[in-house]
Amino acid sequence: MRRSFVREILESINEETISFAGGLPDEDLFPIQEIKEIVNKSSNLKSSLQYANSRGLKTLREKIADKLTKEGLPTSVDEIVITSGAQQALYLVSKVFLKEGVAVESPSYLGALGAFLNNRVPIEPVALEPDGISLEGLDIAMGLTKSLYLMSDFQNPSSICYSLDKRLGVAKIIDESNGLLIEDSAYSDLYFDERMGYISSFLPSSSILIGSFSKIFAPGLRVGWIRGAKKYVDKLLIAKESMDLHSSTLSQFIIDRFWEGNDLESHSDSIRKRYKEKFELFCAIAREKLPSFSFEMPRGGMFVYGRFEGLDTKELVQNCIKAGVVFVPGCEFYLGRLVCDEARFNFTSSNIGMMNEGLARIAYIADKMAKKDRRAEIDKAYCYV
Amino acid sequence: MRRSFVREILESINEETISFAGGLPDEDLFPIQEIKEIVNKSSNLKSSLQYANSRGLKTLREKIADKLTKEGLPTSVDEIVITSGAQQALYLVSKVFLKEGVAVESPSYLGALGAFLNNRVPIEPVALEPDGISLEGLDIAMGLTKSLYLMSDFQNPSSICYSLDKRLGVAKIIDESNGLLIEDSAYSDLYFDERMGYISSFLPSSSILIGSFSKIFAPGLRVGWIRGAKKYVDKLLIAKESMDLHSSTLSQFIIDRFWEGNDLESHSDSIRKRYKEKFELFCAIAREKLPSFSFEMPRGGMFVYGRFEGLDTKELVQNCIKAGVVFVPGCEFYLGRLVCDEARFNFTSSNIGMMNEGLARIAYIADKMAKKDRRAEIDKAYCYV
Repeated sequence: MRRSFVREILESINEETISFAGGLPDEDLFPIQEIKEIVNKSSNLKSSLQYANSRGLKTLREKIADKLTKEGLPTSVDEIVITSGAQQALYLVSKVFLKEGVAVESPSYLGALGAFLNNRVPIEPVALEPDGISLEGLDIAMGLTKSLYLMSDFQNPSSICYSLDKRLGVAKIIDESNGLLIEDSAYSDLYFDERMGYISSFLPSSSILIGSFSKIFAPGLRVGWIRGAKKYVDKLLIAKESMDLHSSTLSQFIIDRFWEGNDLESHSDSIRKRYKEKFELFCAIAREKLPSFSFEMPRGGMFVYGRFEGLDTKELVQNCIKAGVVFVPGCEFYLGRLVCDEARFNFTSSNIGMMNEGLARIAYIADKMAKKDRRAEIDKAYCYV
Repeated sequence: MRRSFVREILESINEETISFAGGLPDEDLFPIQEIKEIVNKSSNLKSSLQYANSRGLKTLREKIADKLTKEGLPTSVDEIVITSGAQQALYLVSKVFLKEGVAVESPSYLGALGAFLNNRVPIEPVALEPDGISLEGLDIAMGLTKSLYLMSDFQNPSSICYSLDKRLGVAKIIDESNGLLIEDSAYSDLYFDERMGYISSFLPSSSILIGSFSKIFAPGLRVGWIRGAKKYVDKLLIAKESMDLHSSTLSQFIIDRFWEGNDLESHSDSIRKRYKEKFELFCAIAREKLPSFSFEMPRGGMFVYGRFEGLDTKELVQNCIKAGVVFVPGCEFYLGRLVCDEARFNFTSSNIGMMNEGLARIAYIADKMAKKDRRAEIDKAYCYV
């Protein structure tokens, strides 16, 4: 199995590269001063440096359970397991519950596909429509497998947000087929205007909800979580224990203390506000500098997803790397697709200068490629004359 | 699969319980003040909170490579991967390299057995002798499988340290069978008087060495590492990436900065000194209060391993839990063994009061059980009269 192209890009770029590739949060929003104070003022750092419970810090699990309950998904503390990022949650779930296969949105999140492939999980791609997964496609897929993985809010890569109809439709199909829903809420808190309810709220005992502190706190701490009925959580716990015993106690402690002393919602609010501004900036610049890139306006998340009509974006990005600018070509998010004109741009980790310069460089290269393609077509036409 | 008894014990005990069960380092030796200063004084905490390279922090990998090179195992920075504790290293290695099976010491480390079982790795137990694994047994096992997992220094649970002859013997057998050695060095730095070289030094390109910062720094940070030839490391990296993307950047940063500013060896020295004192204290108290427990004197590590002759130690510990004191019964460290008179005691996380009180309570219960056994034997004898 090969490594993901995104992480290869992340490793190959240098400090000069303008990157729209990674899903990096804006570092300026990390609560650095608060973290320093939490560590510095703690009178009981010992227990945050010692071995700990595999389930995760109880006070943090309580806060997550409370948040979910307030959001319409009644949850007890025993229904939460802390994981080493949402990525570990995906890995654990695929290892423990998805051996028979899983339906996924197409395109889908790269890290999820990686976890599934690494666990040899058979994958059934289902087309993603502008308001969520195709229900007709899902119906067929549920005849082949009993599990579905999706991101209902601001899906990575497409940034699509499921409509209420689609949410209800998915819940109905899962329920009727006695299936299991794996809902990934990594971007759910990053709405620009309003948030919708989890699909899991309609399927509280036949769903596993995955979440993360990477987007609303700091990804380097590697803290995520799983919410599921106790029968699921207990099985996940056995695998988690053999995988890393438990997640970093210090990381959990820092998030728990921050949440204790501050309103996490108001912290998330400031991130949402900033990301909406950045998103609007990115769109304005993209429309001006990069008109060959067409896209729908997302309502949250960290990405703009669209297409360079007729261009192979994998070839485009390979040319762009040499020019010091990168994004992720769409074919990465599809299984077995080699050519694709779609592309994903992250807008949260670049500033106005990088957006102006980076998108202009891409426009120049895309334009040259398009001309060459037209030239090749003309040449081809001539040879038949 | 059931959860490990040790972690069940750790979850069931309360603050009043005197525990010799977990392999907890002495919390008083955590460099708390230094950690606070590192976090507080950092002018570049941002990058320690951001997503990072799957391989791990380069400066930390360089330090580990340097240390191993000085210890007689020439290592380059590309031959190191940082893991989320040594437990993740074991999980990764068993997932990627041990599908065909692995020979293990009997008794063996619980966390390794858990990782192997969870990855459905066929296990071939080989008897552990006072100077290391049985070479005759290993010879036979290498006919069945090509991999061997061991702890050459102060093995968990037995605290056995391999003799030079055994180290050479193991290397020879692995080499001649074109096998792969998985050497776990979790306790290697915890010698009381002197350290020996890694067996991996004799097999630099057909071994994977696993290490940890849990014992010489702080386990709650969850930082370990794998040293292996690049061909191994590159494969492990793919699995690591799908498992948790990377290990906590903040944890890696803290250890790297500490190592940069302080002599890690002198820090380890103070731990070794303290543990030797605690070990001598434990032995003195055990010999006085708990004469029914016989054991060999270890030369390092964190455990005293021995036996309560003729007593089922699983039954003993179940009685002890009610009396507020715990240890780990030996059968846990053997595959499929239900009854065993062996027991493992951790001596690093208890103080003199706990040792006096805890061992006295165990002595009382063991004594009562032995008397009851004798009584039952007498009763049994009478019924034949």
